[in-house]
Amino acid sequence: MNLDELTTPALVLDLGVLKRNLAMMQRAIARHPGVVLRPHLKTAKSRDVAMLAAPNFGPITVSTLAEARYFAEGGWRDQIYAVGITPQKLDAVAALNATGADVKVITDDVEAAQAIAAHPGKIRALVEVDVGEGRGGVPPDEARAIAAALGNKLAGVFTHAGHSYGGRSIPEMAAIAELERAGVVRAAEALREAGFALEIVSLGSSPTALHAERLDGITDIRAGVYMFGDLFQAQLGTHPEGDIAVTVLASVIGRKPARGALLLDSGALAMSKDRSTEKAPRDYGFGLVLDMDGGNTLGEPILARVHQEHGEAVPAPMLPIGTKLRVAPNHTCLTAAAFDRYHVVDGSREVIATWHRVNGW
Amino acid sequence: MNLDELTTPALVLDLGVLKRNLAMMQRAIARHPGVVLRPHLKTAKSRDVAMLAAPNFGPITVSTLAEARYFAEGGWRDQIYAVGITPQKLDAVAALNATGADVKVITDDVEAAQAIAAHPGKIRALVEVDVGEGRGGVPPDEARAIAAALGNKLAGVFTHAGHSYGGRSIPEMAAIAELERAGVVRAAEALREAGFALEIVSLGSSPTALHAERLDGITDIRAGVYMFGDLFQAQLGTHPEGDIAVTVLASVIGRKPARGALLLDSGALAMSKDRSTEKAPRDYGFGLVLDMDGGNTLGEPILARVHQEHGEAVPAPMLPIGTKLRVAPNHTCLTAAAFDRYHVVDGSREVIATWHRVNGW
Repeated sequence: MNLDELTTPALVLDLGVLKRNLAMMQRAIARHPGVVLRPHLKTAKSRDVAMLAAPNFGPITVSTLAEARYFAEGGWRDQIYAVGITPQKLDAVAALNATGADVKVITDDVEAAQAIAAHPGKIRALVEVDVGEGRGGVPPDEARAIAAALGNKLAGVFTHAGHSYGGRSIPEMAAIAELERAGVVRAAEALREAGFALEIVSLGSSPTALHAERLDGITDIRAGVYMFGDLFQAQLGTHPEGDIAVTVLASVIGRKPARGALLLDSGALAMSKDRSTEKAPRDYGFGLVLDMDGGNTLGEPILARVHQEHGEAVPAPMLPIGTKLRVAPNHTCLTAAAFDRYHVVDGSREVIATWHRVNGW
Repeated sequence: MNLDELTTPALVLDLGVLKRNLAMMQRAIARHPGVVLRPHLKTAKSRDVAMLAAPNFGPITVSTLAEARYFAEGGWRDQIYAVGITPQKLDAVAALNATGADVKVITDDVEAAQAIAAHPGKIRALVEVDVGEGRGGVPPDEARAIAAALGNKLAGVFTHAGHSYGGRSIPEMAAIAELERAGVVRAAEALREAGFALEIVSLGSSPTALHAERLDGITDIRAGVYMFGDLFQAQLGTHPEGDIAVTVLASVIGRKPARGALLLDSGALAMSKDRSTEKAPRDYGFGLVLDMDGGNTLGEPILARVHQEHGEAVPAPMLPIGTKLRVAPNHTCLTAAAFDRYHVVDGSREVIATWHRVNGW
């Protein structure tokens, strides 16, 4: 099977690029002895990718109960389910753990912590701490009430410096990473001084995992999007510009010479409506249009407009209807989620494998 | 089964609202004797919805080959596949038509028309005409070259006035609808004068279908989003504000009293990152947060920020973790596409059915 034979739009994953991105992260983590990489599989949602990113069924991070179940059944037992838990979801987690998994949940709420403590199942939890992102988590100094409510279900502390995505230079990323480290370690130390035992002190985001200068006191680093990369992460310096492993194979379905536009069958559903590059140095609209081999031979048209099934590439050469192209995404997590499988290539047009994804919840 | 028992996020479809929206469109179309409603199933992607929207296996419109196959196998033979065709997709269409379907394709390209004419299968095509949207289609006066290239595979002419979404009043919609009608009818008349036989003269969009004052010369009207409605369509006047049939059932996963925010588990994947209401009179962020019965008792918080699995609702009352809410979408076509099924209710919390969706391509 060859990319030419696929019906478009289709999701393409380049194995060579994936392996380079994985190796780059492994080198970055190796600078910090004793720290374990716990890859976040919310981007890939694939056991085949997990075989490479978390080999030997190593620790992983997940974002949905569907992922937790799929990876637990595939052999990845040591998981953090990294979205604030609700009491209603505890039965599902406990059921997985009853089969041998060790899915840990997170919470930043005393009442939720009480529900975890009261649950009859085997469920451990991390206290979520906010180190400046302003999303989930309590301030480090307020972790104690939640830890106390968890009682012997406490497994550790957890933070996410999603505001690293606002950084625009390596020193800035390193500074945010240090704030993230210091905040979660401060919370951990205060809890230990108060007599709580902590197995895990976890932080992460791809930029901080790559650029942190020190990780003293940290046990686990979580990162996900680095595996595939995208147009936004390339501009953050997470990976070299050409190393976006996931692209959408699209076909030319219309040509409009008067406005220098090609219509492609990669619209809003295939690309997502993510506009994260809007505030980056270079705004790619809804995606960067590459040639079928993933190269920049077309003069770098961007998807300037999308409708449900139409994407408009400008300024574009007038290629024949049916010409296949590849479109690099702004945000690979959202783009990949529209597809149920990857068509895997390795530097050529030959499709060497088809890898399943676990979408939904 | 009750909404309380569902794992969130989940997609909820209210049957009573759906039926009201369908009846409203049927009344609007009934003003135009001889014109057939050809519902666009790109929004619903469900045979169960099609049973109501296109009863007795009446004519439908689809946006993907996956929909074409699914609805053809379900009994809906008379289809228009309303995205510009590529030569590579003709075999799939011909294979469906060989089983008794009559899937018509559209094109605005002479070379694609020649490929259709040369194809050995049973495939008919409509010439796509642009009446001002500036997406696909040729100007009405240029339809003839494409019609000639299609030869005896010509089935008619087709247009889409997507720019009706820029209208902001009923008279403005009616004016755009009349431009749409006049443009496609001018193309049809010119072709008939030149000796071409046309079975279908098709136009559509939910706003123009509802607000057109006359439809002389038109055979088919296509419309899709009216079935479900959304926060954007409500502001266009497509349906009453409360008549959004599809919502996302979500749970509170965090509460941040300092910023008056609730974190919900309806993030960017569940809602989509569609921001169509940004330029509407009222900007709903990424969605309007309703109570679990779909009512406005919460003071109308909106999802102001979304991450992959987190949505932040502000200004919100501090409800307990695990509280279930419903979130109305900006753009129902994109939101529904994240889910593989509808949980159907009818004005209460009781789930009376589960309806499948055909996502992907």
